[in-house]
Amino acid sequence: MSVTRQDAERLDAADPLASFRERFVLPAGVIYLDGNSLGALPRETARRVAEVVNGEWGQDLIKSWNLHGWIDLPRRVGAKIAHLVGAEPDELLVADSTSVNLFKLLAGALRLQKGRPVILSEANNFPTDLYIAQGLIELLGGGYELRTVPRDQVLEALDGRVAVLMLTQVDYRSGALWDLAAVTERAHAAGALVLWDLAHSAGALPVDLNGAGADLAVGCGYKYLNGGPGAPAFLFVARHLQEKLHTPLSGWLGHAAPFAFESEYRPGAGIYRFLCGTPPILSLAALECGVDLALQADLTQVRKKSLALGELFLDCVQAAVPEFALASPVDPQQRGSQVSLRHPEGFAIVQALIARGVIGDFRAPHVLRFGFAPLYTRYVDVWEAAAILAEIMATRAWNQPEYRVRRTVT
Amino acid sequence: MSVTRQDAERLDAADPLASFRERFVLPAGVIYLDGNSLGALPRETARRVAEVVNGEWGQDLIKSWNLHGWIDLPRRVGAKIAHLVGAEPDELLVADSTSVNLFKLLAGALRLQKGRPVILSEANNFPTDLYIAQGLIELLGGGYELRTVPRDQVLEALDGRVAVLMLTQVDYRSGALWDLAAVTERAHAAGALVLWDLAHSAGALPVDLNGAGADLAVGCGYKYLNGGPGAPAFLFVARHLQEKLHTPLSGWLGHAAPFAFESEYRPGAGIYRFLCGTPPILSLAALECGVDLALQADLTQVRKKSLALGELFLDCVQAAVPEFALASPVDPQQRGSQVSLRHPEGFAIVQALIARGVIGDFRAPHVLRFGFAPLYTRYVDVWEAAAILAEIMATRAWNQPEYRVRRTVT
Repeated sequence: MSVTRQDAERLDAADPLASFRERFVLPAGVIYLDGNSLGALPRETARRVAEVVNGEWGQDLIKSWNLHGWIDLPRRVGAKIAHLVGAEPDELLVADSTSVNLFKLLAGALRLQKGRPVILSEANNFPTDLYIAQGLIELLGGGYELRTVPRDQVLEALDGRVAVLMLTQVDYRSGALWDLAAVTERAHAAGALVLWDLAHSAGALPVDLNGAGADLAVGCGYKYLNGGPGAPAFLFVARHLQEKLHTPLSGWLGHAAPFAFESEYRPGAGIYRFLCGTPPILSLAALECGVDLALQADLTQVRKKSLALGELFLDCVQAAVPEFALASPVDPQQRGSQVSLRHPEGFAIVQALIARGVIGDFRAPHVLRFGFAPLYTRYVDVWEAAAILAEIMATRAWNQPEYRVRRTVT
Repeated sequence: MSVTRQDAERLDAADPLASFRERFVLPAGVIYLDGNSLGALPRETARRVAEVVNGEWGQDLIKSWNLHGWIDLPRRVGAKIAHLVGAEPDELLVADSTSVNLFKLLAGALRLQKGRPVILSEANNFPTDLYIAQGLIELLGGGYELRTVPRDQVLEALDGRVAVLMLTQVDYRSGALWDLAAVTERAHAAGALVLWDLAHSAGALPVDLNGAGADLAVGCGYKYLNGGPGAPAFLFVARHLQEKLHTPLSGWLGHAAPFAFESEYRPGAGIYRFLCGTPPILSLAALECGVDLALQADLTQVRKKSLALGELFLDCVQAAVPEFALASPVDPQQRGSQVSLRHPEGFAIVQALIARGVIGDFRAPHVLRFGFAPLYTRYVDVWEAAAILAEIMATRAWNQPEYRVRRTVT
């Protein structure tokens, strides 16, 4: 390789984010390049979850809803995430899963945009985004349509029938990045709302929802926000849309007065109406720790390091193994915080990497995906991962029967 | 009082469930009669959650989805709950919140029951059940109707327009218990499906869904299942209905092949289609501990003790404080695992109790609610709670300004 281990070590020594790594628990002997699937465990989380379990639940029981602010957690953690994505504190809530939040906002958007029956999306969008749109449309019966088009035809497909354009800012397979402001502007010019899925953006790069004039967004707590497995998701509704938007998931915590136990639903003020049922407090408390950590980092530095990690990885891999096709945009500015490669033996190669302690992941049919979480990934990790990959390819070490057994992996 | 402390102690000494109490963490100086709002912390849960956080998430990271069976948790914990409510293991799943699960099943039921546009429920049903029905109907547009009637008119309101009868088996305010089998039979005779909300029944009394020929059910993990604050909820769909029922919340984990990342939704086999997004694993692991504990108890004994605790409480209270009106059925067999009293100063009285370490709760407008969780509540606790209540009433200790300040309480 043209880049040496010493080069990587020098980059680590000069890294302004280097000290964040020690605030995470990371297993020995593992290079973890899958923080875009499940972020690592912040050290503080273990302490905090034990405190919530033993102290708050165990000792204060039901009183903790007030005493320890459980009832306020969706709003409190939401306000913190808002800070990471360019939203106001009262425009973002933690609630449910990304899928459930997509349903709420798509249903609200279709109703608001009467006479426009189309949800427009990219054919390669993350499946749950498409599935949820399909489920909503099937429920609503005739007249509505999910229109999916290839990525390069999305903007031209914006016509007067489109109620809402639903896009994932960073593509889960390729890492390709949409220009949030430019796309939002084009959609608005066509009279459409935009629903952004920030699953792979929040915490990974600067996002400026209000700067872009964004309407609606959802996102994931367990990737770059390091909120833990299946952490609750979030939703954003621009302030000017909140009172206009109906959610069909009108659960009791979204009621204007949940504890009055009225028999008629009245939507809560502003963003509160998008709460539904009682949130999973243990998981929500864990998410808050991850978000608190992200808030301490400068997202401009995070983005800069993320791109540098990706470039270092690609430089090393492409120098050693020219047979990999790049499945991500060539221009790093057009990528999120990941690099994807394409190889017909991608699945087996990823298994061989995992067997050697390098955790990336595989996305059907042929994509090897490597995520770079700048808060805990060092340059030297990336250098070593590339060296191990090069060795696997040079020795055809991936060509083992045990690396071809497919299991479910997220 | 006619019943003495010694009588209560004798009952505890003879209690076959007495040993369960030491398997819970219970704060000193507190008599907790609110397990029907938030169940107490099982000792095992603290250990297990720490293991999931530190060992599984912290050390094995993304591999834990397979290695530690996270992907299987909704089905695995569901199968355990199935055992508690008379269902087959493949008829019950843990997923989302009760509210979200109600939406899935109501939407599925309305679609299955074409030509029957009515959801029938009780006017005093728990608000979120009614709100979710209202939200669904509003989303679907004209033609559908939520018909709510007083409790004693529910059965006669079953007519040929009713698609689904939605009832909570144990009323959250009064504790009044529906006869699951008899009501299901009446509904079926009228061509309606029944959706049971088991929030206050699961883990508290024997429930036999299949014995009753039940169609659909939802339930809550954080009450008598002791799953922790906001624990994920569950849903039941009788096997013969599973393939006929569409869920509009068609998220990726309910897909037939979630990890194939197909662009078209295909419902998963059987109960699996009712999964939606990625579940909150920390909260789900905590729930499993509570369910495991409930599985070790004989529900017939649980029910017997629950009724005895309620009767003891009422005997003591009514002997000492005749001014309380009973807000629960007089016949204990007609009650769930709670006793409710009515008093115009109910709110202040509950606050005075809490100040003295007796945690019950208040439900607007005038109900004092006392839940009896037989796994950790002793007869002597109930005796003392009644004595403290009697003392508060005799001295008018509730009549303090600080007991009238209302806050949000679940």
